[in-house]
Amino acid sequence: MHTDKRLRLLTLARDLQRRKARQRSGLFVAEGIRTVEELIGTALTVRGALVSPALDATDRGRALRAALASADVPLLDVSEADFASAADTESPQGVLAIAEQPTVAVGDVIGRTAAGARLLVLDGVQDPGNAGTMLRTAAAFGAAGVVALAGTVDLWSAKVVRSAMGAHFRVPIAHATWDETSAALAAQGVALWVADMAGDDVSAVASEAPSRLAVAIGNEGAGISGELRTAAARLVSIPIATAVESLNAAIAAGILFYALRDARRGE
Amino acid sequence: MHTDKRLRLLTLARDLQRRKARQRSGLFVAEGIRTVEELIGTALTVRGALVSPALDATDRGRALRAALASADVPLLDVSEADFASAADTESPQGVLAIAEQPTVAVGDVIGRTAAGARLLVLDGVQDPGNAGTMLRTAAAFGAAGVVALAGTVDLWSAKVVRSAMGAHFRVPIAHATWDETSAALAAQGVALWVADMAGDDVSAVASEAPSRLAVAIGNEGAGISGELRTAAARLVSIPIATAVESLNAAIAAGILFYALRDARRGE
Repeated sequence: MHTDKRLRLLTLARDLQRRKARQRSGLFVAEGIRTVEELIGTALTVRGALVSPALDATDRGRALRAALASADVPLLDVSEADFASAADTESPQGVLAIAEQPTVAVGDVIGRTAAGARLLVLDGVQDPGNAGTMLRTAAAFGAAGVVALAGTVDLWSAKVVRSAMGAHFRVPIAHATWDETSAALAAQGVALWVADMAGDDVSAVASEAPSRLAVAIGNEGAGISGELRTAAARLVSIPIATAVESLNAAIAAGILFYALRDARRGE
Repeated sequence: MHTDKRLRLLTLARDLQRRKARQRSGLFVAEGIRTVEELIGTALTVRGALVSPALDATDRGRALRAALASADVPLLDVSEADFASAADTESPQGVLAIAEQPTVAVGDVIGRTAAGARLLVLDGVQDPGNAGTMLRTAAAFGAAGVVALAGTVDLWSAKVVRSAMGAHFRVPIAHATWDETSAALAAQGVALWVADMAGDDVSAVASEAPSRLAVAIGNEGAGISGELRTAAARLVSIPIATAVESLNAAIAAGILFYALRDARRGE
């Protein structure tokens, strides 16, 4: 029966490549040595891990296998072909772990936005690498949390988790509708500024940023949605040299988080 | 004979996946509809293009095929399998073009760094996506040029060209040794500031940035090399919330380019 449960890990990992399966089960997959190392250092419940021979190629990989075993994580050894059929990122390094998503209500994420804190709102960001990099940036700037609105990639996809480099384990994340988010921002008195190429130069208005601030980033191609543009207290843009050029969405988010960080924090 | 020349395009495109072949021939490959569209709008000599049936799936693709034909670019239609064997990026959209690299000497790139201008120096940046995104950011902030030092990915690889979104066609690029670069910076009187986690907070020292400034970004893992750290007039860092976190290298470069842009330019 123990063996049976472990064998089911392969089927489960494959199933969790689908967003619906992740949403229904509340599980996610962490791939790659560094991400799994970080995962087992958290309080999250790890249901099991798949391991292929590739993991044993390095000292660090062998150490991770030992760490998983001593944390009593059910391990299933599979062939490289089976492992590849379950992994969703490039070079998963022979290890993936299945764990429970920490569930945080959008109101709680927004409620944690203390004085001087920033909240990241993703409004239709589609590229997993961009979304993961934005989460990583938000974590680096001490963001209170991240809210993903409808039309945004599932932040619990293996690709997003991989590129966020552990940010999922340090920053509270909620998926929510705009109506829920809008109501919570209003109830908690958190202001909303939105990235928009037609907005005010952020370097000119950053000093006016409210103490508690949500910063929204729109879709890579279409930009911010009409609802958020209407609701925003301010539209902000990044002063680039010529209209011919544009910034990658994750770069734009990074610059806004830098420009709008609260310089008084950490004093 | 004309047909023979076109058939050779497939062999040539495959060959140009190797850095040595690109260096020896002075050619590069542009992949994807948008990149090839931009390429044929430049003065660069296009030697030919490979096209697969996938290109004809969209109006934009068909328009590009017509534009290539009317620009007298030799076209070779190949199967999806042959096309895949020659392409180096994800979803190349059924089109790749082979063109001549514009050659710029490092001294000329550095000599173009006018008052208020910034130059990007890549010191061991290895990830093609990071390098391409950094080029795109440099172009957006009106950088005078980009210099890639030894240990940096070949900026003319198809992956870098693709992720730079046309920046290669708008910003002069040179590959050079540190000795050549160092001598040219000194001869032209261009200062060097270097990204380093142990450096001064860039937000505190940005107002002291020299008018003509090179900004160097190091390797994703190991950071800047000892030579550049020693040579730098200043080490600068980005003020992040906690030491646990780090920024993606391209995000760090974007923030430094924003923080160190010359606000007087464009007035």
